[in-house]
Amino acid sequence: VAAEEPEPAPRRRGRRPGGEDLRAVIIAAARSEFAARGYDATTLRGIARVAGVDPRLVHHYFDGKDAVFAASLELPVRPGDVIAGVLAGGPDGIGERLVRTFLSVWDSPAAQDSGVALVKSLLSSESGARTIREFVVREIFGRLAAVASSDDAEFRAALVASQVVGLIMARYVVRIEPLASADAEDVVAFVAPTIQRYLTGD
Amino acid sequence: VAAEEPEPAPRRRGRRPGGEDLRAVIIAAARSEFAARGYDATTLRGIARVAGVDPRLVHHYFDGKDAVFAASLELPVRPGDVIAGVLAGGPDGIGERLVRTFLSVWDSPAAQDSGVALVKSLLSSESGARTIREFVVREIFGRLAAVASSDDAEFRAALVASQVVGLIMARYVVRIEPLASADAEDVVAFVAPTIQRYLTGD
Repeated sequence: VAAEEPEPAPRRRGRRPGGEDLRAVIIAAARSEFAARGYDATTLRGIARVAGVDPRLVHHYFDGKDAVFAASLELPVRPGDVIAGVLAGGPDGIGERLVRTFLSVWDSPAAQDSGVALVKSLLSSESGARTIREFVVREIFGRLAAVASSDDAEFRAALVASQVVGLIMARYVVRIEPLASADAEDVVAFVAPTIQRYLTGD
Repeated sequence: VAAEEPEPAPRRRGRRPGGEDLRAVIIAAARSEFAARGYDATTLRGIARVAGVDPRLVHHYFDGKDAVFAASLELPVRPGDVIAGVLAGGPDGIGERLVRTFLSVWDSPAAQDSGVALVKSLLSSESGARTIREFVVREIFGRLAAVASSDDAEFRAALVASQVVGLIMARYVVRIEPLASADAEDVVAFVAPTIQRYLTGD
């Protein structure tokens, strides 16, 4: 984090806040913009305006809207990076890669805490729900649709969403046993073929 | 709150409340018992005690704990009846029957409203979440486990739960398109094989 500071140092005599403060100002502005406009209509330029900083400074700290969003929710990973890794191998075996990667992220306690909090906030406020839905559709399932069979790619990606969201609910939020405590590979063995068929099956 | 009064009947001369009032008294007692004890530990006898009525009276209005529970949540259907219909045909084709029945219930606006409210309450309070989880596991997925391949029936039923819960979330709560507006039979075509494989597949 220190490495990301564009500017020196907290103890200078000037009036501008230091790197950590600037980053926090940008994140606070982003939270307000995402809540007010949703994910799709928010821009890095708009966040810069609300934060009262130069847009280049926002780009200095965050190389994309999804990175600001992940930071504003304090996610321990950047979902776009995770999904890029899953997509990199192409359609063959994507079901297995997706489920295994998904579980390796969510099975870590830190991700689980922030993820469960996210799901609950999704359901507790209309604007929160809309923002998170737009983010997930655009940055995660929109990208999956690109590898789905093309005749009904969006429908297929939404079906993947249904199984993945359900897995989050059953394993991490509601904690239905024995699924909640099951070995990740046992879950992969059952769920990966579902994802593969939704994306590329007949 | 007035409904929790076990005793009379504002304007009548007799001391016992009439049928509708008694039913309301029982339901109010049931809500309080389910919230305090969860689903599994609540009994019809305990509900009668809290309501200040004879247990036979509870049995007169409700022929099972699941019926009181459905009434206490104002569900438009009794889940136990629905699942009994799905199970009646045995393991062959159960995936298709389950998904088609499930959609026919949830696609009705009344069920959707109460169902979505239920899901939100599930996530908003710890005791509500526990009660609903116990109900769903015992009365719905516990019964499905009875038709699942026997080596890991509970795990299989929990996987079914994950896909069904995810379908509720994606189609009715978060409303991910085009799944939210898709024709029910298109959803059946994709999701039924998933349910069938989770329950009875290799």
